[in-house]
Amino acid sequence: MKKNILGTSGVTQIGILVHDIEKSARVFADFLGLPVPQIRTTDDISKSKARYRGDPTKARAKLAFLDVGPSLQLELIQPDDEPSTWREDLNRKGEGVHHIAFKIKGMKDKTADLEKEGMTLLQTGEYTGGRYAYIDATRDLKVIVELLEND
Amino acid sequence: MKKNILGTSGVTQIGILVHDIEKSARVFADFLGLPVPQIRTTDDISKSKARYRGDPTKARAKLAFLDVGPSLQLELIQPDDEPSTWREDLNRKGEGVHHIAFKIKGMKDKTADLEKEGMTLLQTGEYTGGRYAYIDATRDLKVIVELLEND
Repeated sequence: MKKNILGTSGVTQIGILVHDIEKSARVFADFLGLPVPQIRTTDDISKSKARYRGDPTKARAKLAFLDVGPSLQLELIQPDDEPSTWREDLNRKGEGVHHIAFKIKGMKDKTADLEKEGMTLLQTGEYTGGRYAYIDATRDLKVIVELLEND
Repeated sequence: MKKNILGTSGVTQIGILVHDIEKSARVFADFLGLPVPQIRTTDDISKSKARYRGDPTKARAKLAFLDVGPSLQLELIQPDDEPSTWREDLNRKGEGVHHIAFKIKGMKDKTADLEKEGMTLLQTGEYTGGRYAYIDATRDLKVIVELLEND
């Protein structure tokens, strides 16, 4: 394993797949004593340019974020039925943790470095001000890893 | 759901079950650019007073901690074969995220409050300077929750 391959050791999000984000957003907020978070929907494919396992995908997800530390968020994710790493894992394993996320710089180089380590690029996409990539790091790190690059 | 039931919203650990902690400790350390963490073993039952689903258990685990944020650690966990929530989940679901942890005060009251919400107390134990409890919060929060109380 190449050392410090992402250039950071900071985990910034824990992504959790849920079936009913409206309900889960309320339950998590109550449990944590936080305001109920706003629910947003990821952009459609014309803006997100989402790709899943190499092919364009129309997949979108509803997201809600809760602050659970100075630089840590829980991200609740309710995917639609189009092909995505979210839908694949929700169907296969049910609700629960989907990924841990890191903020990085240099998405192309970083994802290439991870692929050289034998990790599979699962899904990529864009959002206003940045881009993401999900990497299957389960062989080495036992979890899916998300890279987030904000401009 | 009672609001702010733990009195905190801060997630302090992400617990990850692994089969080979010596190997995983090295891989995680390299990936994150951190020193390889020391591996410790939880106390035996005479000190840990561990209980699993109501009964005393001799279960122990090897643990390693990696700092991945200002107040966040990854906790790698390799359990032995005695009955525990670690062994149960590793056998049932394989390697991966086992729990998220919160630091709390007032263990007895907090676990009683969670049980009143219909959550199951899975495992409890003690360590030098504190105690822990694992709660099955999967119905509401989609993950197991660990409470940590340090004196």
